[in-house]
Amino acid sequence: MKIPSTMTAVVLTGHGGFEKLELRHDVPVPTPGVGEVLIKVAACGVNNTDINTRIGWYDDSVEGDTTSGGESGFDSVEDDSVGGWGNTGIQFPRIQGADLVGRVVKTGKGVGDDWLGQRIITDNWLRNWSDPMDRAQAGYLGSECDGGYAQYVALPITNVGKINSDWTDEELATVSCSSCTAEGMLERADVTSADTVLITGASGGVGSALIQLAKRRGATVIALTTAAKAEAVKAIGADAVIRRGIDKWKDVIRATTGTDVVTVTADVVGGPVFDDLLSVLARGGRYVTSGAIGGKKVTLDVSHLYLFDWKLIGSTVNELHIFPSLVRYVENNEIKPLLAKTYPLADIEQAQTDFLKKEHIGKLVIVPPQ
Amino acid sequence: MKIPSTMTAVVLTGHGGFEKLELRHDVPVPTPGVGEVLIKVAACGVNNTDINTRIGWYDDSVEGDTTSGGESGFDSVEDDSVGGWGNTGIQFPRIQGADLVGRVVKTGKGVGDDWLGQRIITDNWLRNWSDPMDRAQAGYLGSECDGGYAQYVALPITNVGKINSDWTDEELATVSCSSCTAEGMLERADVTSADTVLITGASGGVGSALIQLAKRRGATVIALTTAAKAEAVKAIGADAVIRRGIDKWKDVIRATTGTDVVTVTADVVGGPVFDDLLSVLARGGRYVTSGAIGGKKVTLDVSHLYLFDWKLIGSTVNELHIFPSLVRYVENNEIKPLLAKTYPLADIEQAQTDFLKKEHIGKLVIVPPQ
Repeated sequence: MKIPSTMTAVVLTGHGGFEKLELRHDVPVPTPGVGEVLIKVAACGVNNTDINTRIGWYDDSVEGDTTSGGESGFDSVEDDSVGGWGNTGIQFPRIQGADLVGRVVKTGKGVGDDWLGQRIITDNWLRNWSDPMDRAQAGYLGSECDGGYAQYVALPITNVGKINSDWTDEELATVSCSSCTAEGMLERADVTSADTVLITGASGGVGSALIQLAKRRGATVIALTTAAKAEAVKAIGADAVIRRGIDKWKDVIRATTGTDVVTVTADVVGGPVFDDLLSVLARGGRYVTSGAIGGKKVTLDVSHLYLFDWKLIGSTVNELHIFPSLVRYVENNEIKPLLAKTYPLADIEQAQTDFLKKEHIGKLVIVPPQ
Repeated sequence: MKIPSTMTAVVLTGHGGFEKLELRHDVPVPTPGVGEVLIKVAACGVNNTDINTRIGWYDDSVEGDTTSGGESGFDSVEDDSVGGWGNTGIQFPRIQGADLVGRVVKTGKGVGDDWLGQRIITDNWLRNWSDPMDRAQAGYLGSECDGGYAQYVALPITNVGKINSDWTDEELATVSCSSCTAEGMLERADVTSADTVLITGASGGVGSALIQLAKRRGATVIALTTAAKAEAVKAIGADAVIRRGIDKWKDVIRATTGTDVVTVTADVVGGPVFDDLLSVLARGGRYVTSGAIGGKKVTLDVSHLYLFDWKLIGSTVNELHIFPSLVRYVENNEIKPLLAKTYPLADIEQAQTDFLKKEHIGKLVIVPPQ
């Protein structure tokens, strides 16, 4: 296979609005280093983390929600090196995109030829392999190294997983980031068939994955979404839906569980719903979060935390077994893809604009020029 | 043994200040019911929960810290039935006192004579034994049933544990409430010898027990206390002490661990120290709490909770194995008693006043007339 010397890619030039995303056609195709493979990218999912990184949301100086992520000018981020994972800052220019699917077209030193032609998806956590669960040293694909908003990407084989699936490339590009995040949350909260799980952002990437993966564990699922999306969210597998602003939460919970409470809350919203979520959490219950798109700062009553024997659990850097588990679930069709729409790479601004509108169900996917 | 028909006891007549504590000499000695034993009380520890219950602090309408617990007039508590554990309210009059030590002097129906004369300490959680970990139905000795600020108390044998120890009665009265609370915290936070544990309120009952019990697990302990108590807290077993207002936290942590962070924080203070505690908590670290004597409401950054993979763990109703473990630690002298001072029952106001001043190390103990 002939590999060109330059490629088309979207390059993030700094923290800010859409103007920081530049479509370039002269980006050098990377050379796979020792232990790496070169991947021809077939599709790459759109995720909130791309927007968070671009607007510098991961820095403490940025308050508020992420819904304004299309606007330019985040003046509060003064230092371009902030906003990365772990203890290192992000470096520009950077090619974003974590959820990539593709085929191996070239191998670096130390990688066997059996990798050539393999269809792969990515494990997005960049780790120090001498201590892989050292979270301070963890980075993320598309943040601390270049990702999938490009025709090619070079990655360590520790970050790619061979996959044998009847899903299309675009469908496979819906799972890695969102579903690994969701499965990591359920694992850290130790969700079992004995649990009733209340899920926020249920129509989104992580939320819809939470529904499927909690059902896969045999749990009862109550999803929080808008009236417009209620039927679609039920179709994903939720046992019951709370329509925001319409249903009384306790009515739905009581009709579903026979009690006024749930045993687990899986949240990606934070901010304005935090209080309501805790108000229906059982004694001994677990609240697990992997996002705060509604806002970072909340008020917590420590006397409730201890008197109700709650656990509030953050979940970001996954244990090593989460990614291979997800590959297995996909290969066995234990979950299904939720592909809402695809966009050519040149339309990334439109894709992110639609993503922020949150009118879709499931995932949006970018397709680079083939 | 001759058992009188009336006894001396301190009766709590309602929520409020010290005026709600009445010393009476005409309280009927209780009759042990089915499955119960009558205990002649030898000593009973003073605990924060006695004060919390009296002032109605467990009700959400009461804000702020508990240091004003000696004052009368908590007007915000309008409903006398609030402030109990579980879903039931407290009922007055009530004899408080959880940490009691004594000897069985009479048995109820269904209890073998081998109990007579046994020296016992109490497991303070009142449970529904058809579902003992149903936290909503859990009550606490001295809150949902009468406790040890009296000459006699009748308790189910499920709440008493025989103990064979060379400790004095007053020394034994230092362990049940505080040490079971502390061990429950360490268990729920899964503390091991790999951890460095930062402990607040280190001179108090739970704090000093946390030091001993974390050391028993092989953990490294850093204690937060005042300069005046630093040496005494070190003598309990802390590897290092942060003197409040004097030492820079990170200096002490770095000198002890070689890093800027601890892996576990065990807190009973909440309120004003919450932010500082989280600022030195490692990625993947656990914050565990069983109290909020410094204040209930704190601001939490949900993005920190998830991006740092923290677990914030509340700990109140213990698993069943915690109390028998504590009995074993005492019998094997794996921990030592920290008895600061004893008071006759008639001096309960002085005992609680001293307790709230927090100038002592370890525990204060009440002794009823023998």
